[in-house]
Amino acid sequence: LKGVDLDRLRVVLVSTRNPLNMGAAARAMSNFGALHMRVVNPYDVAFREAKSAVGGSPVLKKAAEFSTVAESIADCAVVVGTTAERKRDLQHTLRRLEDGAKLIRSALRRGRVALLFGSEKSGLTNEEMGYCHWLMRIPTREEHGSMNLGQAVAICLYELVRDTKTTTVTKRQLAASADVERITAVLFGTLRASGYVKERIADSTEQKLRRLVRRLNLAPDDAVVLLGMLRQIAWKVGKGDTK
Amino acid sequence: LKGVDLDRLRVVLVSTRNPLNMGAAARAMSNFGALHMRVVNPYDVAFREAKSAVGGSPVLKKAAEFSTVAESIADCAVVVGTTAERKRDLQHTLRRLEDGAKLIRSALRRGRVALLFGSEKSGLTNEEMGYCHWLMRIPTREEHGSMNLGQAVAICLYELVRDTKTTTVTKRQLAASADVERITAVLFGTLRASGYVKERIADSTEQKLRRLVRRLNLAPDDAVVLLGMLRQIAWKVGKGDTK
Repeated sequence: LKGVDLDRLRVVLVSTRNPLNMGAAARAMSNFGALHMRVVNPYDVAFREAKSAVGGSPVLKKAAEFSTVAESIADCAVVVGTTAERKRDLQHTLRRLEDGAKLIRSALRRGRVALLFGSEKSGLTNEEMGYCHWLMRIPTREEHGSMNLGQAVAICLYELVRDTKTTTVTKRQLAASADVERITAVLFGTLRASGYVKERIADSTEQKLRRLVRRLNLAPDDAVVLLGMLRQIAWKVGKGDTK
Repeated sequence: LKGVDLDRLRVVLVSTRNPLNMGAAARAMSNFGALHMRVVNPYDVAFREAKSAVGGSPVLKKAAEFSTVAESIADCAVVVGTTAERKRDLQHTLRRLEDGAKLIRSALRRGRVALLFGSEKSGLTNEEMGYCHWLMRIPTREEHGSMNLGQAVAICLYELVRDTKTTTVTKRQLAASADVERITAVLFGTLRASGYVKERIADSTEQKLRRLVRRLNLAPDDAVVLLGMLRQIAWKVGKGDTK
């Protein structure tokens, strides 16, 4: 992975209820190399269940359990809470994930950072937020702000590891897929009639051709012109055959 | 939301098996304002179940169902596949999500874009990838690359809507002009032999053709393959004539 090392990150799940969410969070953590999970006051049965699941995540199996937020973050230099709120009378600085992630990356170079996720139902309580240096929210739309826990964890970790450098973009209008497919079909038919296609591997040749035609990134007008040309050639090739 | 409008995005779930994953994908879509889901060849029982779930997502309830990838993307100008692979002998351009998202945002300003997610077990098949213009992968770590479907959808959509303030330039390797010219010459000869070219305006037709071929921005390997195809067709057309 490019970007930051997440070895100093502690993902803290507070009062999580659903074992599936714990499993999903653990999987995303493993995907992005954040291997240290902490759980605070989990619903006991769910936690045991998730921890012992056959084929379960190693991240979850070695998750550390705490009974209070205070204990869970005691060794962390920076504590960040996540929230879906944007209006509630928050006593804390609220940052968008894109901005908050920069601060977290920077803090991880110097010490441990705790990232807190509240319960599925109500998020972090005011008291739990009291342990946070600041809060962060994922930029969801106002009409439906609350995210699934496992997805929220996944997105936060992705933002931390994503490549912050950039490369980019050409702008061009492209032909509709249906036209691109027509071109592929006519060209393939003509190639077949011309003896280019080995019947034994015809399917694979067709797939290669389809990819090649797609890579052309044809503009809409060009697609029309090209299709006209190919149809004329196909007609000629077919005519040759019947002679 | 800042950034792009996802109204032209079609999230296409191909051969999804688990109704929980469909529900999770739909929820993330709603979080980020991507409201148009398409499903191809879903496991029927799971799809009905997910669609009719009490309290289920409106996105899922109005998901459109298709029996083939070809039909599901027919009205889309750009088709992007997602994959966890990084080494497999991929025939397609493979972009990191950070880079791919820029191209998608740009394409969404001009037309519909389909974003394909394969089955939980094996991802997109080679044949399904054949319908894609290029592929995209989330930058997970090598030891654990495969993501949960709902989380993968969530992360891709987040990257599309996240606040960006950067730009740059890409360079793609292009075929040598000599090869591009050979393609033009062979194609023009074949078109002439097929009766496509009006002799009175032959010069202007040749020039138009030359510009069209240049606009294809052929990669070096593709130019070689295309030239081979066209020569075979030219040979067949010529042979037909001499009979």
